[in-house]
Amino acid sequence: MMSLKAVILNCTLKKSPDVSNTEALIDKATELYAESGVTTKVIRVIDFKVAFGNTSDEGKGDDWPLILEEIKAAQIFIIATPIWLGDKSAVCKMVIERIDGSTSEEDPINGQPPLYNKVGGVLVTGNEDGAKKVCADVLFSLDHSGCSIPPNSMAYWVGTAGPGPSYIEANGDRHFFTNKNLRSLVANTAYLARVLKENPIPTNLLAIGEEAKKESR
Amino acid sequence: MMSLKAVILNCTLKKSPDVSNTEALIDKATELYAESGVTTKVIRVIDFKVAFGNTSDEGKGDDWPLILEEIKAAQIFIIATPIWLGDKSAVCKMVIERIDGSTSEEDPINGQPPLYNKVGGVLVTGNEDGAKKVCADVLFSLDHSGCSIPPNSMAYWVGTAGPGPSYIEANGDRHFFTNKNLRSLVANTAYLARVLKENPIPTNLLAIGEEAKKESR
Amino acid sequence: MMSLKAVILNCTLKKSPDVSNTEALIDKATELYAESGVTTKVIRVIDFKVAFGNTSDEGKGDDWPLILEEIKAAQIFIIATPIWLGDKSAVCKMVIERIDGSTSEEDPINGQPPLYNKVGGVLVTGNEDGAKKVCADVLFSLDHSGCSIPPNSMAYWVGTAGPGPSYIEANGDRHFFTNKNLRSLVANTAYLARVLKENPIPTNLLAIGEEAKKESR
Amino acid sequence: MMSLKAVILNCTLKKSPDVSNTEALIDKATELYAESGVTTKVIRVIDFKVAFGNTSDEGKGDDWPLILEEIKAAQIFIIATPIWLGDKSAVCKMVIERIDGSTSEEDPINGQPPLYNKVGGVLVTGNEDGAKKVCADVLFSLDHSGCSIPPNSMAYWVGTAGPGPSYIEANGDRHFFTNKNLRSLVANTAYLARVLKENPIPTNLLAIGEEAKKESR
Repeated sequence: MMSLKAVILNCTLKKSPDVSNTEALIDKATELYAESGVTTKVIRVIDFKVAFGNTSDEGKGDDWPLILEEIKAAQIFIIATPIWLGDKSAVCKMVIERIDGSTSEEDPINGQPPLYNKVGGVLVTGNEDGAKKVCADVLFSLDHSGCSIPPNSMAYWVGTAGPGPSYIEANGDRHFFTNKNLRSLVANTAYLARVLKENPIPTNLLAIGEEAKKESR
Repeated sequence: MMSLKAVILNCTLKKSPDVSNTEALIDKATELYAESGVTTKVIRVIDFKVAFGNTSDEGKGDDWPLILEEIKAAQIFIIATPIWLGDKSAVCKMVIERIDGSTSEEDPINGQPPLYNKVGGVLVTGNEDGAKKVCADVLFSLDHSGCSIPPNSMAYWVGTAGPGPSYIEANGDRHFFTNKNLRSLVANTAYLARVLKENPIPTNLLAIGEEAKKESR
Repeated sequence: MMSLKAVILNCTLKKSPDVSNTEALIDKATELYAESGVTTKVIRVIDFKVAFGNTSDEGKGDDWPLILEEIKAAQIFIIATPIWLGDKSAVCKMVIERIDGSTSEEDPINGQPPLYNKVGGVLVTGNEDGAKKVCADVLFSLDHSGCSIPPNSMAYWVGTAGPGPSYIEANGDRHFFTNKNLRSLVANTAYLARVLKENPIPTNLLAIGEEAKKESR
Repeated sequence: MMSLKAVILNCTLKKSPDVSNTEALIDKATELYAESGVTTKVIRVIDFKVAFGNTSDEGKGDDWPLILEEIKAAQIFIIATPIWLGDKSAVCKMVIERIDGSTSEEDPINGQPPLYNKVGGVLVTGNEDGAKKVCADVLFSLDHSGCSIPPNSMAYWVGTAGPGPSYIEANGDRHFFTNKNLRSLVANTAYLARVLKENPIPTNLLAIGEEAKKESR
């Protein structure tokens, strides 16, 4: 079986060694990826000094280039985030902005940005409401930045309306719906990553740009 | 070259023969698909009697089953919608609800819903702001319903803030950014559809469900 | 106590006499409004022939003008909607588009649209995730169309991630968080409606438009 | 005329003295507020050391408590943010999370959080698409945290689809639609702040909580 690497960014607001509910869901994904022959690298973003910005390198003291290297070396890229006030975390938005910055690093031959031919997915935990919005936002951003998205490339856990126990306390690891989706996400991201590794998208974005320019006259 | 079929649903609020700006963008997509060897079927949903609901057949007088047949027969499924108050049209939301209904029609062998192994994309026009939100919502819904999404599977045109000319009047057909994205969308959806036709996603969702059930005990 | 009227639009996809979970939450609101001296009119939109469109009157056979009359006669305007695939219902989006149409009916003296000086709120039920996104979308649309929004002008019930019982079956009527928010919504919309009735917003939008025009030169 | 104070948080990603397009729009708001007798305090959040988190004080080295003091001392609270990838900035999301933290600082007598009886609004600039989504998200968060929202409490500028000049370069300060909305925002937030100062919302959230508890049995 073709060897694959997945990078999972944990966008929790809590620095290590604080307990992260999102990390608990990531751990399950990591286990399943291992069973599928996929090596996983998990990065808790807030443990690094990542600068706000919209480029791939915001200069001295910015740890993002290290993280971006890991993403570039992987075939699968998963963003994992908690929900705060019905939305992805601020750390997650910061990550999205930095990834968006990578789209200007175009390949000189075909114009593809560095995330082209990678496969994207999203993991979400929250004590309540907001998961689907977060999934939509994150998958949009990944797609926009070059990733392909297989079906059901999202898994989340949330409790009933209002304050309440989070994933770990609520035994979310035994929640059927979340676990079924997590298994689908792992199977489908691994499968599509293998297919795209053997059949990389050949689209020449520079040539397409030239054609589009002709239409603008 | 493998023959492919695309279905594009126009979710304009205007019945034929009223002019639809979204249709003008669709026309460009259709042309480009023809050049790529993809046959396109365009359906203006509001010209049919589609019932509100969340199943694949809401009974007597519901035209949705006819439209769903076309989608099932295609490999590429594009939702095209205008923007109203910063959001997809009500017709578009109605379509999303009906498609969501199809997810309960699981294949008896592998549990896959009928849109599995289809490739999804989105086209948007509006006189102003709202396109990215609409793209995120539509791509999320397509992914959730079984479609795969290649990179940059979205193309849109919008004008500056506030009331103003729409796509046709503003010569949106000559807008470089929109045209480049449209060409990427056509190239990438056609490519991924061919790849998935030759390498259909084998994930057995029923088996995955059984595994997930074991974790719930 | 000043007499007030509230209109609540139920945007369920189900025609009467089908059971609507959203109606069950509305019923609680109606009771609380009665205790606050507010008369409530509840309208299940799908029981009427409301046309898709973006004006206040889409012509023959369009029931929207009847509903809009009721809204205009009220001081409080609440949109109630179920969640489908993490988003408001298509009926709700249709209602939003029709209300947006009312903004062009400007008062000849001060340019205010008909919903100015009304107070808005939102009620949501769903078997799972999506409520906050729906609240944000609906409150934005109400505000955009002229309504004022008091604090916590939203109440919702949702269950844990995935398919599951809806509001009625899950005894959502006994859910503390939902009930506390519902009571806040009723108290605050009634209070602000009274305050605005005695202190209507005097902003002259026509004069403001003239000032803004001068800046455009 | 009653003296009022407005706090405007600039959530740009750029530290001073870098040019911020959002600041240029804020400057216009400040001028208009001055004409209405409202004193304005503008804070560029990224110039401070604000910690990620969801409480009002994340401990040593966290500048948020200073900013929160300013907000508490004002009657009008405006969040201003640029658009990045169709969404509010990460700094803006960080601010929202910190403000959400303030909701647990309940008044011991009536349970109201510190932003109750303040009036909220939102300012947005971006070179393209995303403003309405940002407005909806920010106004939702402000309302959720205790603010009241008058009609049209949002003003934004965006250009046509795709990369292009930003607010300053594009002479957004002369854009009629943006300027009209900005004037409405200033007039309506100032008016509602005065009305609420004279007629503070009396809702006792603790008493409401007690009533809601009774329903849970």
